[in-house]
Amino acid sequence: MLLERDLIQSVGFRNVREGDRITGFQFRVRMPSYRGMTASLIDGIAVRVGDLVDVPADVPRWTFGGKTYTLAELWESDGVRWPLEEAAIVTVPFEGGLPDGVHEVSIELRLRMSYIPVEHQPSTYKVSRHVTLAPEAHGSPFKYGVSLYSFMGDYGTVLDLETALAGIADIGATGVEILGEGHIPNYPEPSQEWVDDWFRLLEKYGLEPTNYGSWIDTRLHSSGPNGRDMSVEEGAAALQRDLRLAKRLGFRSVRPKIGVITSDLVPHPIWTEVVEKSLPLAEELDVIICPEIHAPTPIKHEVVDDYIGLIERTGTKHFGLLIDTGIFQDRPIALKPGELPGQRPAFMDGIAVDPADFADVAEHVVFVQAKFHDIDENLQDQQIPWEPVLRALKDAGYTGYLSSEYEGEREPWRSIEQVRRQHSLMRQVADSL
Amino acid sequence: MLLERDLIQSVGFRNVREGDRITGFQFRVRMPSYRGMTASLIDGIAVRVGDLVDVPADVPRWTFGGKTYTLAELWESDGVRWPLEEAAIVTVPFEGGLPDGVHEVSIELRLRMSYIPVEHQPSTYKVSRHVTLAPEAHGSPFKYGVSLYSFMGDYGTVLDLETALAGIADIGATGVEILGEGHIPNYPEPSQEWVDDWFRLLEKYGLEPTNYGSWIDTRLHSSGPNGRDMSVEEGAAALQRDLRLAKRLGFRSVRPKIGVITSDLVPHPIWTEVVEKSLPLAEELDVIICPEIHAPTPIKHEVVDDYIGLIERTGTKHFGLLIDTGIFQDRPIALKPGELPGQRPAFMDGIAVDPADFADVAEHVVFVQAKFHDIDENLQDQQIPWEPVLRALKDAGYTGYLSSEYEGEREPWRSIEQVRRQHSLMRQVADSL
Repeated sequence: MLLERDLIQSVGFRNVREGDRITGFQFRVRMPSYRGMTASLIDGIAVRVGDLVDVPADVPRWTFGGKTYTLAELWESDGVRWPLEEAAIVTVPFEGGLPDGVHEVSIELRLRMSYIPVEHQPSTYKVSRHVTLAPEAHGSPFKYGVSLYSFMGDYGTVLDLETALAGIADIGATGVEILGEGHIPNYPEPSQEWVDDWFRLLEKYGLEPTNYGSWIDTRLHSSGPNGRDMSVEEGAAALQRDLRLAKRLGFRSVRPKIGVITSDLVPHPIWTEVVEKSLPLAEELDVIICPEIHAPTPIKHEVVDDYIGLIERTGTKHFGLLIDTGIFQDRPIALKPGELPGQRPAFMDGIAVDPADFADVAEHVVFVQAKFHDIDENLQDQQIPWEPVLRALKDAGYTGYLSSEYEGEREPWRSIEQVRRQHSLMRQVADSL
Repeated sequence: MLLERDLIQSVGFRNVREGDRITGFQFRVRMPSYRGMTASLIDGIAVRVGDLVDVPADVPRWTFGGKTYTLAELWESDGVRWPLEEAAIVTVPFEGGLPDGVHEVSIELRLRMSYIPVEHQPSTYKVSRHVTLAPEAHGSPFKYGVSLYSFMGDYGTVLDLETALAGIADIGATGVEILGEGHIPNYPEPSQEWVDDWFRLLEKYGLEPTNYGSWIDTRLHSSGPNGRDMSVEEGAAALQRDLRLAKRLGFRSVRPKIGVITSDLVPHPIWTEVVEKSLPLAEELDVIICPEIHAPTPIKHEVVDDYIGLIERTGTKHFGLLIDTGIFQDRPIALKPGELPGQRPAFMDGIAVDPADFADVAEHVVFVQAKFHDIDENLQDQQIPWEPVLRALKDAGYTGYLSSEYEGEREPWRSIEQVRRQHSLMRQVADSL
C-alpha cells in the first residue's frame, strides 16, 4: 500500500456515522516527519473545512491500528504508534456531516520532537488541500465503477494494485475494470498466486470485475522486410486468449480494441470473422464481446451499424456495444502549453454526439466507460455534459456501470482526486434527474 | 517494485562489459503507453548522449525477460512482451563506454499502435533527461552505502523497500542504513515474515546492514496535565529495544538520537546513565552505540568531549562517534521561495568545521553519514566540500562507510538521482586523492 504525496490524503475523506446519524467526518493524514513516532508525541491537529468547520487542535480524535483516542488519551498512552507507512485517521465531530463535493481542508498539525531545541517546539505543519468527500448521493439507477486506465502513469509509479483498489472502494464504487495487457503481471499467463491475490483483494474491498480491455493488434507484424497483415486466425487467437483470461479473473465482458484502416477508425476487415469465430467460446464462457464506440466515431455511423448487423445476423447475446462518454464531449480539451489549435485531431474539441442518440442503440449497450478529462474544484466538468448524458442513459433504461476513464493531465496523484470528483458529480446528477 | 515517473529511468544507467572490455552502455525505459505490448510493435529507439553518442533507431538492442534482441529480431518475434510494469533495457554499443558523471540522455522511441490511423504512426515519444551513470570509479579506501533517510517523502509514496534497495545496489553500494521507527513495518515488533523478507532482499541485492537509527524521545510524555520528564529506566528501555531489533536485522551499530535541553543541542542529562546501563547489552549483542555529531554541534565541543570521556572512563569498545558530514558544510543551503535570510537557524548557512578536526576524534569514529543537499548537473556539490573532507577522512585512516543522507528538496523521485550523483562524485574524488 502506498500513500498520496500530500499530507492530507484524498482517499479516506468521508462522513462518519453512529447508527443512522452522521456525527462528523474523517480524513487521513500522512506522517510529515522522516520517521514514525509514538502517538504521545502528537500535540494535536486544528482543522478547518471551508467556512463550515473550524476546530482547535485538541478537538479531533485520532485512530491508529483500529482504535480511536482523544488527544488527552494519546498523551497518557504507551506504545500507540503513528507509523511512517500508515496514515493517521483524524475524526472531527460535526453533526450532520459535510455536504457532498469538493472541500478545502486545512490542518495545523503539531508534533513534539525531542531532539529540537524546545523554543522551536512543537514542530508545526500547516497545509491546505482541496479534497472530495466520498459521496453520500446514491446515484441510482446506475452502478459505479472505475477503470484502472484512469491511473495511467500513476499505476506502477505511485499506485500499486491494492492501493488502487482501496481508493476505488473508498468512494463506494463496486466495479473495477482493467486492461489485460497492462494490469496483469506476466500477461497472458499470470501466476496462480497472482490470480488468488486478485480474488482476495476483490473480496477485501467489496469489488466485482466488470469489463476487461484487450487489443487485436492488427499491425503486430507489419514492420520489417517480412512485414505482413494479421490473419483472421491470429486475430481470433488473440481475442480468445483474452476471453479465457478475462473469465479466469471473473470479468463479464471483454472490449477488444481492433486495429483500424481509415482516419475515422473503420476497423480492420478481419474483425467480423474474428468475432464470429469467437462467439461460441464467448457463449461457453458467458463473456460478452463489446467493442467501444469512441470519438471520433459517433453513434450514428456505419461502424456501429455493422456491429448491430452482426448481432442481428447471428442472434448472439454475447456481442454488444460499449459506449465511451467521450463521444458526448461538447467543449474542447484545454490546449497543452505551447500547443496550437489545429495541431491536434479535430475530435479533441469534442464531437458532441446528441445524448438522445443513445436511445437508438440502448438495447445493445452492455457497458459505459465514463470518459472525462477535467473536473474543477466546483465540481464542474469542463468537457462532458453529465446532466443530459445521464438523463439520456436513464431514460433509455440503462442501469449498468458507469466506469470512470480519467484521461486528463497526468500529473502524479491527480487521477485519484479527479476520479473522486467524477463519482461525486455523477451520483449527484443522477439523484437530481 | 515501482518505476520512476520519467520514461528514462535513473536506476539501470550503466556501462556494459563483455569480459574485461566495456562495449557500450544501457539504460531502462518505462513503457509510455497506458498498456503493455508485444515487442514486435516496437519500431526502434534513437539515442543521443550529450555530444558523445548519436545512434539511429535501429541500432540499440532491447532486453526483455533477460533475453536481448535486435530490432529486426523483435519484428520477427512472437510472444516477447514489454510489460507496463517493467522497464525495457536499452543497450547501445559504444566502445569504451561513457565516462563517470551526469549525462543528458535523449531518446526518440517509436511504437506502432494498431488502433490509430496509419498517417499518425508510429507513435513517437521524444524525451530528454539528465541521468547519472552507475560509477566506474572505485572510491577506495572507503565503503559506500545509502541511508533510507535519503528517500524521505519518496519512501512509501513512490518507493517501496525492494525498489529502494535495488536502486542502492545499482550504484555499486554495499551498505544500507535504516531508521528503525520508520522503515520497519509494525515497529518495534516486525513479523518474522517481514524479517525473512528483509534478509532475502539483502541477499538478492548484495547489501549489508550498516547503521540503524533510533530515538530516545525524552519528551515522550511531556504534554498534558500529567506531563513529566523521561526517566533513566525509560530511556534505557528505549535504547535496548532498538539494540535488540537492530541485532535481529543484522546491523552493526545503532545511532540513538537523544533529546536535547539547550539551543546548541546539549543532550538530556539521562544520556550518560542510559548508555552506561546499556553497554553490557551492546557488548553481548556486539552492536556499537554511536550518537551523531551533527550541525550545529562541531567536533570541538563539550558534547563530543563528554562522549569520548565515557569511552575512556568505561573502556568500552561498544560506544563510538558517528560523524554527519553536514558539519563541514561551507556554503548556505538555498533559501526556499519566500524564505528570508535570518528566518531560519544560522547553521543552515553552514558551520564549516575544518575537516582537519576529524583527525582529533578519528580513532572513535565508527560511521560517517554523508549528508548532502544539492549536487548539480556538473556534479558540483553546492554545500559540502568533498575534496578536503574525504582527504581528511583518508589521511586519518578512516576506511568505513560513507552512507548517503540526502537532505535536499523533496520533489518526488529527486532523491534517487541525487544519491547517484553523490556516489559518482565521492568515488571520483576519493580516486583522485
